Amino acid sequence: MTRLDERLDAIYTIGGGPGANRPAYTPAEDEAHALVEGWMGDAGLVVERDPAGNLVGRLAGRRPELPEVWTGSHVDSVPSGGRFDGPLGVLAGLEAVERIGRQERTLAVTVFRDEEGWRFGRGCFGSRALCGAVQPGELDGRDAGGVTLRDAVGAALPADGWLPPIHAYVEAHVEQGPVLSGLDAPLGVVTSVVGLARLSVAFRGLAGHAGTTPMAGRADALVAASRFVLAVNDAAARLCRPDPTGSRGAVATVGRLIVEPGAANVVPACATALVDARAPDEETLAALLSEIEAAADGGSVERLRFTSPVSMSAAVCDVLRAAIHDIGLDAPELYSGAGHDAGPLGTAGVPVGMLFVRSRNGGVSHSPEEWSDPEDVALAVDALAGTLRRLAGEASLAPTASP
Amino acid sequence: MTRLDERLDAIYTIGGGPGANRPAYTPAEDEAHALVEGWMGDAGLVVERDPAGNLVGRLAGRRPELPEVWTGSHVDSVPSGGRFDGPLGVLAGLEAVERIGRQERTLAVTVFRDEEGWRFGRGCFGSRALCGAVQPGELDGRDAGGVTLRDAVGAALPADGWLPPIHAYVEAHVEQGPVLSGLDAPLGVVTSVVGLARLSVAFRGLAGHAGTTPMAGRADALVAASRFVLAVNDAAARLCRPDPTGSRGAVATVGRLIVEPGAANVVPACATALVDARAPDEETLAALLSEIEAAADGGSVERLRFTSPVSMSAAVCDVLRAAIHDIGLDAPELYSGAGHDAGPLGTAGVPVGMLFVRSRNGGVSHSPEEWSDPEDVALAVDALAGTLRRLAGEASLAPTASP
Repeated sequence: MTRLDERLDAIYTIGGGPGANRPAYTPAEDEAHALVEGWMGDAGLVVERDPAGNLVGRLAGRRPELPEVWTGSHVDSVPSGGRFDGPLGVLAGLEAVERIGRQERTLAVTVFRDEEGWRFGRGCFGSRALCGAVQPGELDGRDAGGVTLRDAVGAALPADGWLPPIHAYVEAHVEQGPVLSGLDAPLGVVTSVVGLARLSVAFRGLAGHAGTTPMAGRADALVAASRFVLAVNDAAARLCRPDPTGSRGAVATVGRLIVEPGAANVVPACATALVDARAPDEETLAALLSEIEAAADGGSVERLRFTSPVSMSAAVCDVLRAAIHDIGLDAPELYSGAGHDAGPLGTAGVPVGMLFVRSRNGGVSHSPEEWSDPEDVALAVDALAGTLRRLAGEASLAPTASP
Repeated sequence: MTRLDERLDAIYTIGGGPGANRPAYTPAEDEAHALVEGWMGDAGLVVERDPAGNLVGRLAGRRPELPEVWTGSHVDSVPSGGRFDGPLGVLAGLEAVERIGRQERTLAVTVFRDEEGWRFGRGCFGSRALCGAVQPGELDGRDAGGVTLRDAVGAALPADGWLPPIHAYVEAHVEQGPVLSGLDAPLGVVTSVVGLARLSVAFRGLAGHAGTTPMAGRADALVAASRFVLAVNDAAARLCRPDPTGSRGAVATVGRLIVEPGAANVVPACATALVDARAPDEETLAALLSEIEAAADGGSVERLRFTSPVSMSAAVCDVLRAAIHDIGLDAPELYSGAGHDAGPLGTAGVPVGMLFVRSRNGGVSHSPEEWSDPEDVALAVDALAGTLRRLAGEASLAPTASP
């Protein structure tokens, strides 16, 4: 068992099973931060904690005045989460930095707080705080126990953030999907993090006695909502165009449907669908939302949330691709269907890149079934080391056609 | 305001608003029973309470050895129920008996307990107990507060019931539907009480991350359940054949749909639909259930409940029709889409008939919006009086072709 595997286990056992249980801003997340802080110290990194509680461990470069090269991820988890989601990126980053040692640019390994977002309702909090992208009123949000995010953070946050000049941010992460496994590829280069919209669509009908209301006279809210669920599914399937690399486009999901009054003998008066719609580019996301809103004909649509897609830096992608080729592997491209800390940093103008590691078990994630093979994890460290060495050794990123 | 209207109001105000609030076997239902018991005494009826707590007020006939003629209904209500559902049949019966006075046969007005069934899960309890049709284990069922039906009843019930020889049972009730209103008819003759099946149909899919699970690789339980909801609706609509009298056939409703895990960003792993299917005859109900079970392809179907349709006695229907014609009205036939105490008595072999009174407001029921016009209620008393006079004056029912 490698040191990285042992460290994954050490973090995984915090908080008790089944699976990972390290909610953001709790002693379990703190304990994982403390472990990583110790390992950073062992590797000779200088550790700093920022106002949001994010951890940054630096290995000073020969030219510390240059913008730094960052890597990392998060160590909080969803309830009963997986072994790799988050810690893999932190630990692979630490291994890679320790392996390549001092470079021209300062290297930093970062551990962001509250990436999962389930406790207070919105993800990537630590990286958004860094970038000055906390939402109005967000700190007043409460968890299920009534604790505000402000109290959980326990420190004042500069509204504009405290993002230093960063040359590039590279994050390794488990894919959480089946694409790389389908391509028989251990590693992949992420080209964008999908944009996401959440909609609540309420269909109102007329309650009636299930026995005495003739079929012809009904306004059954669940029948209307069921047509909508199928239309949402069809719209995403039409806009989901697999390309030769196995990348994919739109996805849309109705994950929650509340039927009222919900009695066996009453024709439903109201059915409210919660829609999650995602696409890797603005155009596809707009087309998907347009189809969903058209399908909601008769329902009342409320947009709960909207995050634009984030393109990875083409220059950083080139470096990742080259580093993967150097270890003898193909470097297929794919989207990230889930949000990651690379998203807010990219939105803030940092050149970002992501390295995905093949997921097993069909790509299941947020579950103890989440799995990546140790061999694939070792390859990720190799590719990440090569990427960081290139990025930290170069004076500037190569110009490319992409924005 | 007639005495009957005043009595409807007196019962309606018990338990506090909005609407009627007289759950079975609670002080509110007891209070309504006490009111009716007093009015029975005023009318010279001899009152008896049976082991289930049903009230029977008798006006002895000139030939008390003959099987009795019964009328009545119930006075328990659903939460926030209507003014007429139940009390109308009791009070119209009492008015009619008082008006026609002593007949050949003994006349009885009955008030059944727990017709609505929502507190312990199964309706027509008092009339079923009378007929010896309590289900195995039913008395061990608990209400939402943990009280068993056995404790609520508070008395031992003879397993075979205590049904006396009954010549005929006639129940007046609000239609709870739009048929009579559509026909512009104050009164109608019920030909059958529909049979009812309750099915639970569980669709199992595969949970997956809503962002990273491609559309093509999904097994979305809610998508499968939505197809099912539409198929159930279509099947009932096809088997719902309006006939010239405005009667109707099958109805089917998915009134509850539980989606698990129910998170915005998780493809549903399980969706469980609760189906209520009804039809006025065995053949149509069998055809409807066969279509529903075929539509559940891939889901696991559990039959929670099955009650066969109950045909009203053709002879009693003839008498009802004649009495309605006597007061100058048409006597359209219709089904009852809801269950009533006439159902268990009919199943037990009692010749039963039901008189429906036109509902206003589209037939809404189980709601404070439930309404029947005072003029229609007065006509119902007239028709019921004529019916009871004929039934209690005759030695035997006319033989007919129907069973």
